[in-house]
Amino acid sequence: MPRLQWSIEQYAEGIRAGDRVALGRAITLVESARPDHQALAQQLLEQLTDAAGENTLRLAITGSPGVGKSSFIEALGMCALGQGRRVAVLAIDPSSAVSGGSILGDKTRMERLSASEAVFIRPSPAGTSLGGVARKTRETIRLVEAAGYDLVLVETVGVGQSEIAARHITDIFLLLLLPGAGDELQGIKRGIVEMADLLVVNKADGERLQLARQAQGYYLNAVRLLPPHPSGWTPRVLTCSSTEGLGITEVWAAVQECAHQFQRSGYLAQQRQQQTLYWLRESIEEGLRQAFYRHPEVQALLPALEAAVLAGRLSPFAAAEQVLRAYEANRRKA
Amino acid sequence: MPRLQWSIEQYAEGIRAGDRVALGRAITLVESARPDHQALAQQLLEQLTDAAGENTLRLAITGSPGVGKSSFIEALGMCALGQGRRVAVLAIDPSSAVSGGSILGDKTRMERLSASEAVFIRPSPAGTSLGGVARKTRETIRLVEAAGYDLVLVETVGVGQSEIAARHITDIFLLLLLPGAGDELQGIKRGIVEMADLLVVNKADGERLQLARQAQGYYLNAVRLLPPHPSGWTPRVLTCSSTEGLGITEVWAAVQECAHQFQRSGYLAQQRQQQTLYWLRESIEEGLRQAFYRHPEVQALLPALEAAVLAGRLSPFAAAEQVLRAYEANRRKA
Repeated sequence: MPRLQWSIEQYAEGIRAGDRVALGRAITLVESARPDHQALAQQLLEQLTDAAGENTLRLAITGSPGVGKSSFIEALGMCALGQGRRVAVLAIDPSSAVSGGSILGDKTRMERLSASEAVFIRPSPAGTSLGGVARKTRETIRLVEAAGYDLVLVETVGVGQSEIAARHITDIFLLLLLPGAGDELQGIKRGIVEMADLLVVNKADGERLQLARQAQGYYLNAVRLLPPHPSGWTPRVLTCSSTEGLGITEVWAAVQECAHQFQRSGYLAQQRQQQTLYWLRESIEEGLRQAFYRHPEVQALLPALEAAVLAGRLSPFAAAEQVLRAYEANRRKA
Repeated sequence: MPRLQWSIEQYAEGIRAGDRVALGRAITLVESARPDHQALAQQLLEQLTDAAGENTLRLAITGSPGVGKSSFIEALGMCALGQGRRVAVLAIDPSSAVSGGSILGDKTRMERLSASEAVFIRPSPAGTSLGGVARKTRETIRLVEAAGYDLVLVETVGVGQSEIAARHITDIFLLLLLPGAGDELQGIKRGIVEMADLLVVNKADGERLQLARQAQGYYLNAVRLLPPHPSGWTPRVLTCSSTEGLGITEVWAAVQECAHQFQRSGYLAQQRQQQTLYWLRESIEEGLRQAFYRHPEVQALLPALEAAVLAGRLSPFAAAEQVLRAYEANRRKA
């Protein structure tokens, strides 16, 4: 492979010029666990802050397996593309590290979209922890935005934790649903519906049209029960058929309306600042936890304390104090 | 004051015998910030583990201000009392430290209940943090259970964080609602409805009866949309009037049904074990955070890093690494 030793400047220049090879390699640096790669990635990200995502939109798209996320992303992406947006598709899928099969691994499911020059698709990074995957995706968003992609779609698997991570790296949260009422929520964890800014009942075509309307009614009721959103936005419930191309223009219009409302109210900028501070705190606390739980003294002590706590012989607060004291004393010695 | 210097054994003996003075003084020890009191409290709690709460029920009761929590607790407590339960009423109200006025401060609002010998009422402990208040309430639960109170009602203010804390120290979560539809949820934070095992529309009397039925219908719909509960329990939506005494027997029956289902399915025991481990982890992580954020090196460094992160000059991950490295280096020197 030529040009293995690119400089930070070469990466930055390539990315700003929209060079897909430079972008792909930069993302690989971000995703790498190697400390030298990580150091390079951080330097690169600092170089690119002048090209920060002021006019970009980050949209999380989630839903249970089988809801048709790939074809929906293809349809919505094509629609945005037709209106001049440059589209990046990323994913948060912590299971990809285990199963090897990422939700975005199969690009053939987004055939038309992946053929376009104005589209960049990247499967979920493998990661040992969800926090790790989300962190890498967040940094990748900054890279694709620096490369001129102004609509970033972040696909997640719809089983809970990934959605919460996605909520902390995107501007708008879109939940895909199946036609039908009540039961179809089985695959969606508690709290996910309440996070959604847009709810879209997919597969609203043919014989399923009636069921889709029914689902729409149910979710309209559910959404009406939610407390008001700080931005003044009221969650919208729409129907569409990705495969038939029905209702997609309306979904894209609703996405844009939501984005405008978030911008007008100042909520978009405010939320991005809060997200930045969230990741600072999260990273600090993750670092503190790792140093603690990996410490030999803690690993020697904690199992017995946990057993005593579960048996009711020791209060969890007293146990915590014991192990914290031992940790502190041992570190001072080291 | 006589007997200022009770021994642990005297406390334990008094509590087991149901002596309210011993119980009250023990709770004061638990609530005290003094290290010697805390040490005594821990020793006492360890003495009392044999009398652990095997046949007790811990019920969180929450709802917006004005929903009638006090009169509902009075009515439900009297009903349980009539069926031979011994009732303790506690509260989680972090605002009491600031405002001085705890939600349970005014016992006159529970006149009949507080007159009974089989009832123990204790206002919210003052605390600097919600975690502190919840921790003290959790330890107080163990004390009142050791004293023979087998139904513990934990009142919270209904504004979000207190409910999440209450969820982690109780078995069943009861949400009180006002008659009417939609708008009345304004005071309830996102996620609270989804935590509820029982939803009770209070003030269902006179002219409000129709509005109460309407609210019941709305919440039945909302509850139907929730994913199934691990215990197999389906949240129940009831109406009652605490002041008229209507529907209270039915609410108490539903509480007991829910408790039976939680017991039968093994969920109750499992949840209590998870709660114990939760508080162990929470206390550890709270300790790690406090040591970090109070460290002079961190306090000197963090504000500038936060500013750099907010200005986009530094990624939150790089900033976290910098401050963690400085903290670590400084501690080793100390």
